[in-house]
Amino acid sequence: MQDKKPLILISNDDGYLAKGIKELIKVARQFGDVIAVAPERGESGMSHAITIKNPVRITKREEGEGYILYSINGTPVDSIKIALNQLVDRTPDLVLSGINHGSNASISLIYSGTLGAAREGCLNGIPSIGLSLLNHSSDADFSVVTHYLPQIISEALSHGIASQTLLNINFPDIKVEDCKGIRVCTQTKGVWKEEYEKRTDPHGGVYYWLTGAFKNFEPENEETDEWALEHNYVAVVPIQIDTTSYQELDSIKKWNWNGAKD
Amino acid sequence: MQDKKPLILISNDDGYLAKGIKELIKVARQFGDVIAVAPERGESGMSHAITIKNPVRITKREEGEGYILYSINGTPVDSIKIALNQLVDRTPDLVLSGINHGSNASISLIYSGTLGAAREGCLNGIPSIGLSLLNHSSDADFSVVTHYLPQIISEALSHGIASQTLLNINFPDIKVEDCKGIRVCTQTKGVWKEEYEKRTDPHGGVYYWLTGAFKNFEPENEETDEWALEHNYVAVVPIQIDTTSYQELDSIKKWNWNGAKD
Repeated sequence: MQDKKPLILISNDDGYLAKGIKELIKVARQFGDVIAVAPERGESGMSHAITIKNPVRITKREEGEGYILYSINGTPVDSIKIALNQLVDRTPDLVLSGINHGSNASISLIYSGTLGAAREGCLNGIPSIGLSLLNHSSDADFSVVTHYLPQIISEALSHGIASQTLLNINFPDIKVEDCKGIRVCTQTKGVWKEEYEKRTDPHGGVYYWLTGAFKNFEPENEETDEWALEHNYVAVVPIQIDTTSYQELDSIKKWNWNGAKD
Repeated sequence: MQDKKPLILISNDDGYLAKGIKELIKVARQFGDVIAVAPERGESGMSHAITIKNPVRITKREEGEGYILYSINGTPVDSIKIALNQLVDRTPDLVLSGINHGSNASISLIYSGTLGAAREGCLNGIPSIGLSLLNHSSDADFSVVTHYLPQIISEALSHGIASQTLLNINFPDIKVEDCKGIRVCTQTKGVWKEEYEKRTDPHGGVYYWLTGAFKNFEPENEETDEWALEHNYVAVVPIQIDTTSYQELDSIKKWNWNGAKD
């Protein structure tokens, strides 16, 4: 086992054709064998969704020196699940998800398929990292990501990441020389205030398009990932699987639960 | 405003036709005006997914004394978003999601559309509760849920729930008289170990069905929701939105980040 190269499992939510995953594979190949499994179509906003009611099919798309790229007709989380169950010959040393075209900072990580895939890697006991650039365009310039990525992969492979913890890393959309470095941050508190644009189709039917704007509840908090990104830092947030609110356990225990039992 | 009845917003992930949501509406109507908005089809396993690339349509399905039931062609989270944006005349006092046909204890809450809807209510500042019964069948007997539900709704309306916190409540599939009461618990650590069943279609194509079994990492821990459910208690877990791992911040800060900047 010792003489095997590290195995790096890659996924994303923009689909196997996205520029972001190609850039990620290119860098990751320098560190080990790469298996990439990604949705065949864009699956942004799919969060931690899984495919239960439909069968999943796997298609090999590319194979080169030290890497194989598959697509599946499923979600980002399905990609990690089926890779671990059907496609790898050993447990991966690292799961990398992205590079996402667009931010997954603050609570966007809740909606994100990119972070879903990383969370699934973490649930399976593998050090896992979600990577996102604050640029939605399909031909985004990922050079600020690829500048920092080798060091991130190298550190993750040498230190590992604590059990039940993953990393959510967002990169500002700036030139490498304008980036001030890396900050380890907290998840910014905020909300997506949704607006729906109401339209009428040619047959008189009403339909709605989701739009929305992010509202930051703590814009002055220098510990947060949104603050770091606005100030030209790469934002690294350690994320935990356990979402129990330990500080609310006692107050909820004080509810009148006995009244529930007659 | 004071003389208005409480407004209770309801959703689920089993779809507007499910028995669980009908039972929930029936109980909630005793406490206020009810607006229920649910997916038109089953959306189990959709987690916190949102519909970005397709328009959403709303269909009114039922209207009665103190309640209206709509369906949408979207996810559970979409249901809450579009309800808040388009369908309510005032901010709801409570969001209830379910009653789910099947467990959302432990990490199942990550995959659950039922909990997605409750989490979205919480993100919008509304006290929110996910409700699930440990029985998948479409004609499940919800009497243990409806026994405790009035007290739960009453307590939630009178105390509220702390900001950025929701409740994940799972009910054992037992008779009311066998239920030992309510326990406030932590989210059990565990993993769904996935298996895929590989099949071949009549044309020679290979496809995979997701199956899987839950592995509990802490079966002896009496504080957990899985323990409570196995011992015939209703399990209430307060869940927080902030997933920052504060205990890992320092160790991640110690990575060699400077090497990333040349």
